[in-house]
Amino acid sequence: MKKVVLIPDSFKGTMSSEEICDIMESALKKHFESIDIVKIPVADGGEGSVDCFLQAVGGEKVWVEASNPYFEKMQSFYGLIENNSVAVIEMASCAGLPLVEDNKNPKMTTTFGVGELVLDAIKKGVKKIIIGLGGSATNDGGAGFLSALGVKFQNAQGEVFVPTGGNLCEITKIDTMKLKENIAGIEFVTMCDIDNPLYGENGASYVFARQKGADDEMIKVLDKNLKQYAKTIEREVGFCDHEFAGGGSAGGMGYAMKAFLNSKMQMGIETVLDTVNFDIVAKDVDYIFTGEGKIDSQSLRGKVVFGVAKRAKKLNVPVIAVVGDIGDNIDSCYDNGVCSIFSINRVAVPFKEARPRAKEDLRLTIDTIARFYKSTK
Amino acid sequence: MKKVVLIPDSFKGTMSSEEICDIMESALKKHFESIDIVKIPVADGGEGSVDCFLQAVGGEKVWVEASNPYFEKMQSFYGLIENNSVAVIEMASCAGLPLVEDNKNPKMTTTFGVGELVLDAIKKGVKKIIIGLGGSATNDGGAGFLSALGVKFQNAQGEVFVPTGGNLCEITKIDTMKLKENIAGIEFVTMCDIDNPLYGENGASYVFARQKGADDEMIKVLDKNLKQYAKTIEREVGFCDHEFAGGGSAGGMGYAMKAFLNSKMQMGIETVLDTVNFDIVAKDVDYIFTGEGKIDSQSLRGKVVFGVAKRAKKLNVPVIAVVGDIGDNIDSCYDNGVCSIFSINRVAVPFKEARPRAKEDLRLTIDTIARFYKSTK
Repeated sequence: MKKVVLIPDSFKGTMSSEEICDIMESALKKHFESIDIVKIPVADGGEGSVDCFLQAVGGEKVWVEASNPYFEKMQSFYGLIENNSVAVIEMASCAGLPLVEDNKNPKMTTTFGVGELVLDAIKKGVKKIIIGLGGSATNDGGAGFLSALGVKFQNAQGEVFVPTGGNLCEITKIDTMKLKENIAGIEFVTMCDIDNPLYGENGASYVFARQKGADDEMIKVLDKNLKQYAKTIEREVGFCDHEFAGGGSAGGMGYAMKAFLNSKMQMGIETVLDTVNFDIVAKDVDYIFTGEGKIDSQSLRGKVVFGVAKRAKKLNVPVIAVVGDIGDNIDSCYDNGVCSIFSINRVAVPFKEARPRAKEDLRLTIDTIARFYKSTK
Repeated sequence: MKKVVLIPDSFKGTMSSEEICDIMESALKKHFESIDIVKIPVADGGEGSVDCFLQAVGGEKVWVEASNPYFEKMQSFYGLIENNSVAVIEMASCAGLPLVEDNKNPKMTTTFGVGELVLDAIKKGVKKIIIGLGGSATNDGGAGFLSALGVKFQNAQGEVFVPTGGNLCEITKIDTMKLKENIAGIEFVTMCDIDNPLYGENGASYVFARQKGADDEMIKVLDKNLKQYAKTIEREVGFCDHEFAGGGSAGGMGYAMKAFLNSKMQMGIETVLDTVNFDIVAKDVDYIFTGEGKIDSQSLRGKVVFGVAKRAKKLNVPVIAVVGDIGDNIDSCYDNGVCSIFSINRVAVPFKEARPRAKEDLRLTIDTIARFYKSTK
């Protein structure tokens, strides 16, 4: 092998995408000393996404003061890539669940800091902002974020306030004039790998609020508030697609991105592929190595392996998927551009025993592939 | 791929060697329509060994009347290969554990029928007899077998009798004159994959008699009898290597083969490799596929993958090992001629869940290898 691209998803809870890239790289270099390796750890929009982009395409990590989920100032960050023309923001950097530690309360938490990061990036002159959703501590429908960007939410008393999950229902008027000024000429891309709607039984509150600290009672309130929020937005702003897929991501942040910023909503992998200019980077390589924790017919709905394979097929470059588990019905993977699929499982043990050995098993799987490859030459 | 040899061991308790060959063959043919495949299911000497040899090199299966473990007549069989010049006998065919069903009693069972098979083969003019040990219901030190071949065992009363596990101690005189006549000019090869000695704590009785129906008390008696048997043989026949490895195989049958027939003792895989003329069959193939239930540094002590790889290395043909579990410390496999090692495990589940899916997992593993191979061309 002379040149390869490594573009794996993380194995959730086992190995990060960057770790997988590093292991693959060292295992390949053992057999192919002068191999040219392009590492593209895949960001899904959640924690670590900024670092993934910076590792993949280079750039600068900007540290800046922003509000944490409880409106306290903290040092947060975002990434500047493509000659400072594009900002990459992971909302988890200032609105993430780990930041609230044991003090989880999605009635009170805010996405305000994310808006501050966006403003800072715009001030620096970027033309495009990629925002990764995921891992948030919030259920505020992105209202805090919007407030930071200049949206004025008023209650029945005519007071402007920054709504949170617990009082979204109190909004009666919405003024977006300042927002429009602030974001004029900026292109937004939202990375979002889930397709839950804003509210209802598959919505943000019912599916995700429990892990953010809500109990049954609070979930009902949060869901009701998001529904009311959508109605108010419809009346005040004119956006009426209450059901759109991804609106419920990150406590309704997805809804704000589309309703107010007219953001493009995109799978993480598609965003990564676009951003790294995948079609150019991968066009003359021997192999593309990708992978994810489990591959099955479900993976095909836009997940990493499928996203990579679809592009690679056009380039006519073979894709090797190295995965944790291989599910049933994988023929569709082959139909869609995957060349072959290797599981890292080497012994018949349950996941809890397989997990601590995953890194070594991955290394040895790549080693096996490399050895076999050499035998064919 | 244009030509391959398939020479896997069985995955004990999961798939027979023949099943593995068939699955590998059909998975390869799916990708390489005109591939030339030589299937050599590996016999270990136990049940199924005759069929393995016949499938590997062709020949005739001879059915013949012989005694079962309780001296009752049954239809047994052996194989004739190499233009009827070589007989292959698996002792399990008339002395095997399944034949006694629930009536297990290693004090009473006999290997007499195995001697009858040998006599029949000699009558047919064979020059060489391969006897596979393994899976026996007996603990008679091969005394029944020897009796059928003409050895006269006498007790203190001067009566000639056919000793069994329970009365081996009663032998006082041994007359081998008739035996020598019967086997004159015949070469014997004993297939034996274990290295237990005849008696003692690692001997036939202590290690294997329990599964043949002995309780603690009987095991002690059986072991004492084998020890006495060895002493009597030393005095009467002159064979004094009580400790030799493999003497305790098949209830002491290994001891009889060496002490009375001066048989070569050989690993099953070595016997197979010799018999199929492996060095000629495999010399111009693209790949040799082998495998076993688990590969690890232990496997290197003469088991199938190592046996195959050692020969293949001289031929400079790459060996693919497809196995159940891959153990630790497999570098020595690579040093000894294995090209690469693939596990059939595709999901992180314990063996009891992996076992029922093993055939499909094997098929898909070969499929993956074939797909990857094609991508390299």
